[in-house]
Amino acid sequence: MFKRILIANRGEIALRVLRACREMGIETVAVFSEADRGSAYLELANEAYCIGPAKASESYLRYDRVISAAEIGNAQAIHPGYGFLSENAHFAEVCRSCQIEFIGPPHEAMALLGDKNAARALAKKVGVPVVPGSEGTVETEAEALRVAREIGYPVLIKAAAGGGGKGMRIAVNEHSLKSALQQAQQEAEAAFGNGAVYLEKYIEHPRHVEVQAIGDHYGNVVHLWERDCTIQRRHQKLIEESPAPNLPREVRQAICESAVKLLKAANYYNAGTVEFLVDRQFNFYFIEVNARIQVEHPVTEMVTGLDLIKLQIKVAAGEPLPFKQEDVEHRGVAIECRINAEDPERGFRPSPGRIERIFVPGGPGVRFDSHVYPGYVVSPHYDSMIGKLIVHRPTRAEAIAAMKSALEELRIEGIKTTVELSKAILSHPTFVDARADTTFVERTFLPSQQQEEKK
Amino acid sequence: MFKRILIANRGEIALRVLRACREMGIETVAVFSEADRGSAYLELANEAYCIGPAKASESYLRYDRVISAAEIGNAQAIHPGYGFLSENAHFAEVCRSCQIEFIGPPHEAMALLGDKNAARALAKKVGVPVVPGSEGTVETEAEALRVAREIGYPVLIKAAAGGGGKGMRIAVNEHSLKSALQQAQQEAEAAFGNGAVYLEKYIEHPRHVEVQAIGDHYGNVVHLWERDCTIQRRHQKLIEESPAPNLPREVRQAICESAVKLLKAANYYNAGTVEFLVDRQFNFYFIEVNARIQVEHPVTEMVTGLDLIKLQIKVAAGEPLPFKQEDVEHRGVAIECRINAEDPERGFRPSPGRIERIFVPGGPGVRFDSHVYPGYVVSPHYDSMIGKLIVHRPTRAEAIAAMKSALEELRIEGIKTTVELSKAILSHPTFVDARADTTFVERTFLPSQQQEEKK
Repeated sequence: MFKRILIANRGEIALRVLRACREMGIETVAVFSEADRGSAYLELANEAYCIGPAKASESYLRYDRVISAAEIGNAQAIHPGYGFLSENAHFAEVCRSCQIEFIGPPHEAMALLGDKNAARALAKKVGVPVVPGSEGTVETEAEALRVAREIGYPVLIKAAAGGGGKGMRIAVNEHSLKSALQQAQQEAEAAFGNGAVYLEKYIEHPRHVEVQAIGDHYGNVVHLWERDCTIQRRHQKLIEESPAPNLPREVRQAICESAVKLLKAANYYNAGTVEFLVDRQFNFYFIEVNARIQVEHPVTEMVTGLDLIKLQIKVAAGEPLPFKQEDVEHRGVAIECRINAEDPERGFRPSPGRIERIFVPGGPGVRFDSHVYPGYVVSPHYDSMIGKLIVHRPTRAEAIAAMKSALEELRIEGIKTTVELSKAILSHPTFVDARADTTFVERTFLPSQQQEEKK
Repeated sequence: MFKRILIANRGEIALRVLRACREMGIETVAVFSEADRGSAYLELANEAYCIGPAKASESYLRYDRVISAAEIGNAQAIHPGYGFLSENAHFAEVCRSCQIEFIGPPHEAMALLGDKNAARALAKKVGVPVVPGSEGTVETEAEALRVAREIGYPVLIKAAAGGGGKGMRIAVNEHSLKSALQQAQQEAEAAFGNGAVYLEKYIEHPRHVEVQAIGDHYGNVVHLWERDCTIQRRHQKLIEESPAPNLPREVRQAICESAVKLLKAANYYNAGTVEFLVDRQFNFYFIEVNARIQVEHPVTEMVTGLDLIKLQIKVAAGEPLPFKQEDVEHRGVAIECRINAEDPERGFRPSPGRIERIFVPGGPGVRFDSHVYPGYVVSPHYDSMIGKLIVHRPTRAEAIAAMKSALEELRIEGIKTTVELSKAILSHPTFVDARADTTFVERTFLPSQQQEEKK
C-alpha cells in the first residue's frame, strides 16, 4: 500500500480523499493555490504546498508543480479528484513515467475514451447501443446535411473534444443546422482549441442514467449500479439519485451490463462512470465515459455501503477488487443535492463571498460533504459548488421527505445558494412522480432565462 | 398518525425527535427552559413554549407545564426523549389520562420494570439469568450479612430506586459491608428519596452488553441486536458499539432472546433496552431495563438501517411493527463516542461556556448528532453531553480507524471536552483487542482520580 499520497485537487473532494487516506493510515500531501491558502482541511494533511496563484491554469492544472510537490513531499501516488487534471491522459502518463502512480484508469483507456468518436466506435463494436449519428466528426456543411437527413431531425451537434454543454447545439431542420453548425464549431474551437464536431440524433425527453463501475489491474470490472442524474441546469447536474426511479428491472440490468462490457473492452481499471440517455420507451444510448471519480459518487456509496475513494486507492496500489459482481448490494434510495454558491435572482451567477454562518443538518442517513465552515471565503476562481447534501432512506418517498427537511435545516448566511431551487424541484409533482427529463428544470423553473438565452 | 407531537426534552435528543417528526410530516411543539431560550433547533419546531426557569425541576420535570404546553399547542402525543420525564411511569399515566399519548412503553410496564426488585423477580420467573443476590431489599445489617455470606464476597450494594451509580457500593468482606451499607442507604435516600437497597454478587471484570428492543401494541416484540457499552467512567457510558466484540454467536443469540422474553413477560411495547453484565466466561446476568430511547440508539440505527425514533412514533400511533424478527439485519460495525463538555484536567468537571468554533467531521458513514454550533452556550444546568459522534464501517478495525480520524477532525474551541480521552481509549490495546471491562477506563486513564476518591 502507498505510504503517502498527494491530493491534486481542492475543496470538498480534496477533503474527501484526505479523510479516506487518514482512515487507511496513509499520509497525505495537499497542494493549494494562493486563493485556497488557509482552507481548514489543509491542516489535516501531513504536508501542504502552495503550487501557484489562484488561476487554475497556473496552479491546479500545472503538471510540473503538482509533480514537483509529489516528489518533494515523497508521495508515491497522486489522487486527482474530479475536474482539473483528473481526465488528462497525458498527465496520468507523465505521473507514471515519473514512478508516481496516478490513482485512476490506465492512460491508454483515458485517451481512448476521452475521444468521443473512438469511444462511440468501441461501443458499437461491442454491441452497446449508441445514439444514431455521424461516423466520426463532420467536416463540411454538406456532410452534416447528409447525415442529418439519414438520422432524421432534430439533431444535436456536439464538440468532439468537449463536455459540460460547450459547443453543443440543437438543429430542428436544414436551415437551423447550417447556422448551428457554425456556432458549435466556433464555440468548440474557443473552449477546447479544437473545433471538430459530430452529429447525433436528438433524443427527445431523455433521462440521464449513468453506471458507476470499478475495475482492478487483473481484468475484473464490476458495476456498482446506476445513478439517475436527469435533474440538470444547463447540462450541470443538480440532483442525483440511485436507483433510477421507474426503470424496469431488465433495462437497469442491461444498462449496467453494457457499462461493464464497454469498460472491459477498453482495458479499463479504477473508478469510472458510463453515461447513457434513456428515452421514454426505455431505449438507452451510450453517450460518454467519465474516467474519474464523480461529484455524485456518495449516492452510490450510500446504497452499496462501499467507500469508493478507498477502493480507488486500493486498486491503484495493485490490490484485487475485494468483492465480486454478485456481492454488490443495493439498499434503499439515496439522493444528493449539490449546494452551489449561486444567485438564483441573477441567473445563477456565482455568488462568491464570506460564509458568515452555516448550520448543517444531521441525523441518521444524512451526510454533508463539504469543506466550508463559518468564516470560509468562497473564491470566485473555482467551481461554485460548496457542498453536497446526501440522504439515504428505505424508500424514495422517504428520501425526498428527508432531503426536503434537511434542506430546510441547512442555513447558509453570507452568500446566495441553490438551496431554494433544490427545494422547489423536490416538491414538484414531475420530480416526485419521476417523470422529469433533462430539460425539466429549465422549462419549469427558469423559463425566463431560457427566453433570454434565445434572444 | 399523530398530527402534532410535543417534544418534552432539550438538546440533541430534542433535535433528533424534531427531525424525525419533520420527515414524517408531523408538526412539532417544542418546550424550553429559560436557559435554553434561543437554541437554534427551536426554530425548526412549529411552536415553542417556555416552560420555566433553568432548573429542570421547575421546567422539564414539571408535568403540569409540559402537559399544558401540549394542550395549548394541540399536540396529540408527547415524546419524552431520554432523562427528565422519560422513565416516569406516573407521568406517562397522567399524559394518557389527559388523552395525550405518551410515546413510550405502557405505564404499567414502566412501573414494574422501574422497580428493580420486581424486574428481577420477573426475570427469574421467565428464566432470564440474574445476578445472585438478595430477594428484594435488605432492611437490616444482619440480613445483609446473611445474604452476603450466602452469595459470597465481593458483593455490590445498589439502590432499589436508583441509577447512574448513585447509592452503589462494593463490599469485599463483612467489615466493609457494614460501613458500605450505611453509606449506600444514605446516598440512595438523598438521591432518590428512598433509602432501600439490595445486594448482588459483584461480577468481576464484567462487560456491559445491552439489547435494543422494540414492540408494538399487538404483542410483537423484536430485538434489534445488542450494543456493548463497557467503556464507562463512573457508570457513565463513554463509548458504545455494536456488535459486542468477541461475543460467541450462541451467547449473543441467547442474550437477545432473553431480552425479548423479559419484555414480552412485562407486556412491553415501544422502544426499550435490556441491560446485562457478561463475565469472562460469557455468563450473562440481567441487570435492568431502560424503558425509553437511549443516548446510544444511533449505534443500532447504523447497523440495522432502522430509524428508532420513527419506529417509536409509529408504534405509539398504533401501527404494527413493519418487520419481523428475521427481517432485522445487522451489517458492519458502528461505534459511538459521547462528546461531553468536561474538563479532563479538573476531574472531568462540567466545562460549560460558549462554543467559539466547531468543525465537525463528515464523509461516508460518519454522523454527528448534536444541537450545538458556533456561538452556542453550553449551560451548566444540564447534562454535559454536547454531541455524539458515530461511525459505521464494515469491520471493527476500520470503525476504530474512522473514529480516531473523525475525533481528530472534530475541533471544538471555547470549552473543554472529553475528545482526548476518547482518542486515548480508542488507541489502547485493551480496547482494540476488546478485552476491556467496565472499570478499564478508570483503572487505565484516571488512576489518580480513583486514588483521590478513595481518600
